[in-house]
Amino acid sequence: MSRIFVASLSAMLFLPAAAMAGDLRADANALFEPITPAAAAKVVKSNDLTPAKIELGKELFFDPRMSASQIISCNSCHNLSLGGVDAGSTSVGHGWQKGPRRAPTVLNAVFNVAQFWDGRAPDLKTQAKGPVQAGVEMNNTPANVEATLNSIPGYVAEFKKAFPNDAKPANFDNFALAIEAFEATLITPGSRFDKFLAGDEAALDATEKQGLRLFMDKGCVSCHGGVNVGGAGYFPFGVAQKPAAEVLPAADKGRAAVTKSAADDYVFRAAPLRNVALRAPYFHTGSVWTLEEAVSIMAADQLGVTLSGDETKAIVAFLGALTGEQPHVSYPVLPARTNGTPRPAQGLTSTTAAH
Amino acid sequence: MSRIFVASLSAMLFLPAAAMAGDLRADANALFEPITPAAAAKVVKSNDLTPAKIELGKELFFDPRMSASQIISCNSCHNLSLGGVDAGSTSVGHGWQKGPRRAPTVLNAVFNVAQFWDGRAPDLKTQAKGPVQAGVEMNNTPANVEATLNSIPGYVAEFKKAFPNDAKPANFDNFALAIEAFEATLITPGSRFDKFLAGDEAALDATEKQGLRLFMDKGCVSCHGGVNVGGAGYFPFGVAQKPAAEVLPAADKGRAAVTKSAADDYVFRAAPLRNVALRAPYFHTGSVWTLEEAVSIMAADQLGVTLSGDETKAIVAFLGALTGEQPHVSYPVLPARTNGTPRPAQGLTSTTAAH
Repeated sequence: MSRIFVASLSAMLFLPAAAMAGDLRADANALFEPITPAAAAKVVKSNDLTPAKIELGKELFFDPRMSASQIISCNSCHNLSLGGVDAGSTSVGHGWQKGPRRAPTVLNAVFNVAQFWDGRAPDLKTQAKGPVQAGVEMNNTPANVEATLNSIPGYVAEFKKAFPNDAKPANFDNFALAIEAFEATLITPGSRFDKFLAGDEAALDATEKQGLRLFMDKGCVSCHGGVNVGGAGYFPFGVAQKPAAEVLPAADKGRAAVTKSAADDYVFRAAPLRNVALRAPYFHTGSVWTLEEAVSIMAADQLGVTLSGDETKAIVAFLGALTGEQPHVSYPVLPARTNGTPRPAQGLTSTTAAH
Repeated sequence: MSRIFVASLSAMLFLPAAAMAGDLRADANALFEPITPAAAAKVVKSNDLTPAKIELGKELFFDPRMSASQIISCNSCHNLSLGGVDAGSTSVGHGWQKGPRRAPTVLNAVFNVAQFWDGRAPDLKTQAKGPVQAGVEMNNTPANVEATLNSIPGYVAEFKKAFPNDAKPANFDNFALAIEAFEATLITPGSRFDKFLAGDEAALDATEKQGLRLFMDKGCVSCHGGVNVGGAGYFPFGVAQKPAAEVLPAADKGRAAVTKSAADDYVFRAAPLRNVALRAPYFHTGSVWTLEEAVSIMAADQLGVTLSGDETKAIVAFLGALTGEQPHVSYPVLPARTNGTPRPAQGLTSTTAAH
């Protein structure tokens, strides 16, 4: 069992009582933190967030030519117009293969303790290398990414600008660093909840305040606290009772595959809940399509609590107040391919008859 | 044989001689037109291009939820970061099906005589309804598009604003009108060729000027003239000799499928050549990956001319000067789905084991 989990479990034992006693805003400020750009920049390690690197990272994030098929980009599954996720349940990748887990949001991901549902990547630059190579996602290789980048003079020049001290800057490591730099800018400050935390009592209505109180008192906050309202630790799914098989399939044991420890069977990183109202369907399986149902499942299976209809409604209303200002991104114009650029490998060689 | 084709054929008979005699810029101005926003607005019929409609159209253009799978948007194949096309040969759509033709660029498409390679849609609003419903592309239905739009309050409000006189504005016809309005803004003025046409003699270098002269004298301009350097008429592919089967497959007879006339066998709308350097691979089959090869094929198969290496190089250089200022688009934040929004239909119900 991870240290963070143990720490959070002990927090779970005394926090609800403490929270019940005090002032709502003071209690909330003790358990959550507002989102600020400065906070995002502070958590990125060993990566200078220069404007040149951020701009390059944006281009790479949106460039479908980073996949073997050349039609799937980071943004295909972490869509910035849709809260940083895709619209399906689990993601569809190369060859229309359906992946085993839902794409986690890229928004505010910089604040998570680690990346992926099982935390197998310690940071965004490590994460960025995963989907590019996964056969079920972008199905590419580092060598082919580098060949593509180096075949495009526009990219070669931008890598040189972003990594001025490197002899051969258009490489896979720098690809990942640039994407991390861009992703560290994808934060959503200014939610009504942040305004409330900062002192604007009117930023939440009565139902939302009731929901916030319930969220703290019922124990949700034990896993879903801090700056990202989650994302900070690992917890077993099914503490009070085992979720339905479609929500928690037996085959996916979560973090146990990373730690190789049976104690981590069905342990996942707690979902960060900022902008959660934009991100149906829910859970790592993307099997639950409404926040109402997701909240009920969490209450029953994690806390052993049956919420009334009004309580569920209030918590859902509070979660809606976690929607922040979405990043405003200018859509990049990508540097053009050349005759030397590797061609797409889509696993399809002949055209079909259909028009 | 269409009227436009006959008219263009007669033009082909006397234009090269006339062009050879005169001043390069004067000759070019007689055969081409610069791109301007005013020109774009003028060609759109029965559709007021209001800011509200354009903004709505942009959202719809980028929204993958307009497809049955909810992962394919207009922009998936008409990618504004890649010259308005995708990076493959022919496009990949629903279920990873490969379509029979390459996606034509959406940039400057408003200037084309009609839409699709075979001209089967008279305008952009008609075109916009096609791929949404094509089984091999977005695989959706008008009813499901309307159900989706009306389930999302943000869209309902925006349709009301864009179509203030309609009782039920979030419908499929208005969906198409809004997309047409946005697409009419996707033009690329300011190319070096436009600057040359406007009087800046230094905008083209010596090789590019030689290429322009060859482009006019060899007869390329007979099909590729006007504001879009093509796109204005229909022509048989293989006038001088039959192209290779991978370039012109026997099964796709082009415009004949639209007109039901054998005279239109292997007739296609001439490709508009603005920004062509950004848009490899070439032809409706997307089977040719370099401009050099595409130019050689066109010369040999359409004009019965064998170009020298230098001539090909000069024409390719001229074509590079047709790249204009790409549209600067802010990536939209799309209105969130609700519990009532139809769910994606991806034709996949179970997850695979791969991670």
